[in-house]
Amino acid sequence: MKKSLGPNTFALPLPAFLVGSYDENGNPNLMTAAWGGILSSEPATVGVSIRPTRWTFDGITLNKSFTVNIPHVGLVTEVDFCGLVSGKQHDKFKEASLTPVESSLVKAPYVDECLLVLECKTHKTLELGSHVLFVGQILNVLADESILDESGVIQSLKANPLVYGTDAAYFKLGAEVEKAFSCGKKLLRNS
Amino acid sequence: MKKSLGPNTFALPLPAFLVGSYDENGNPNLMTAAWGGILSSEPATVGVSIRPTRWTFDGITLNKSFTVNIPHVGLVTEVDFCGLVSGKQHDKFKEASLTPVESSLVKAPYVDECLLVLECKTHKTLELGSHVLFVGQILNVLADESILDESGVIQSLKANPLVYGTDAAYFKLGAEVEKAFSCGKKLLRNS
Repeated sequence: MKKSLGPNTFALPLPAFLVGSYDENGNPNLMTAAWGGILSSEPATVGVSIRPTRWTFDGITLNKSFTVNIPHVGLVTEVDFCGLVSGKQHDKFKEASLTPVESSLVKAPYVDECLLVLECKTHKTLELGSHVLFVGQILNVLADESILDESGVIQSLKANPLVYGTDAAYFKLGAEVEKAFSCGKKLLRNS
Repeated sequence: MKKSLGPNTFALPLPAFLVGSYDENGNPNLMTAAWGGILSSEPATVGVSIRPTRWTFDGITLNKSFTVNIPHVGLVTEVDFCGLVSGKQHDKFKEASLTPVESSLVKAPYVDECLLVLECKTHKTLELGSHVLFVGQILNVLADESILDESGVIQSLKANPLVYGTDAAYFKLGAEVEKAFSCGKKLLRNS
C-alpha cells in the first residue's frame, strides 16, 4: 500500500560528495553535497547543485572550476563536519585535518585523502529555484591505485564510498547483487 | 598514489532508476538510468539524463511527464533487462512482469512493484552533448508503507535500493555508518 508524501526530495541512493573550490581569497574550501550526479558521457559531466548563499557558490562562480571528491567510509566525520559549517568562518580542510592538493588541470583543490576525484571546469549552469546546478565537465578522474583492478577498473567495494540515505544517515555499500548488462538477459526469452 | 584515468564518468554511488513514461502510442515504457539525481529542494526536483535516440526521450518530450521509480534489490533482473532493450521493440512492463499504474498527477505510469516513486512533470531541460538532462519537478512522492517508520520517514535499509557501481555491477546498501548532522560535531572543538 503506497502512501503519498507530497513534493519531497526523496531518492536512493544519494551521494555524499565533497566539492572542492578556492574561495575569493584563494583559500581551499569544501562543502558536502548530496544533490547531484553524473549527467552525460560525451562530454563527461557531473552535476552538483548548490544554494547561492553558500560560500562554495561564490568560489566556483569566480574560478569556473571545482573538484568532486568521493569520500570513503572512514571519512564520515569529516564529511559530516563539512556539511555543518561554512567556509566563510571555517578553514574546513585544516579543522578536519584534510589535505588540499591543487589540481594541475583546473583552478580548484582536491582532497588527498579521497580515493576518487573528478577534476571539473564549469560547463553549464542551470537555475532551479533554491539551488543552481553546476554542470562540471570532467577533465580528468584521479583514482587511488588501491581501488583499481589489474585492468584499471574502479572496484566499487574497494572505493568503499559513503552513501547518503533518506533518513539523515550515512551508509556503506553492501555486497554485489548482480553484474550489469548480464543478469537481465534471462528475460529476453520472454520476448 | 593516484592514477589519472582521463575524462570519464566515474562516481559513487550511482543510482539505478527506472524511468517511466508513455510513448507516442500511449503505451507504458521504462528505461534504466544511472545518470541523474536530486537537484533542488524548492521546487523539489530530480534530474535524469537521457540520450535523444532513446524511445523514452520521445515519450517524455511529448507528455512532459515521467516517473522515477526506485527499485529494491529484488528487482535487479528487471532493472537490468530494462537497460538492455528498447521500448520501441519491446513491451518492457509485460516482458519483465512489472505492473504499470497510471499516475493521478502526471501523464506517466509508475511501477507498482517499486517501493518508492517520484511523480514528475518536466520543469526544465538542458542539452549536454550526448544526453539531455530532464529536470522533473517532483509533484508527489509515493512510498510503500513497509519502508516508513512511525514518523513517516523513509528507512533507507528497508527501501533496500539497488546501487549501481563503477565496475558494471549492481550492489545493495550496507550498514548505517553514522547519523548525519551529528557525527561531524566532534570536529567543532578544533575550531
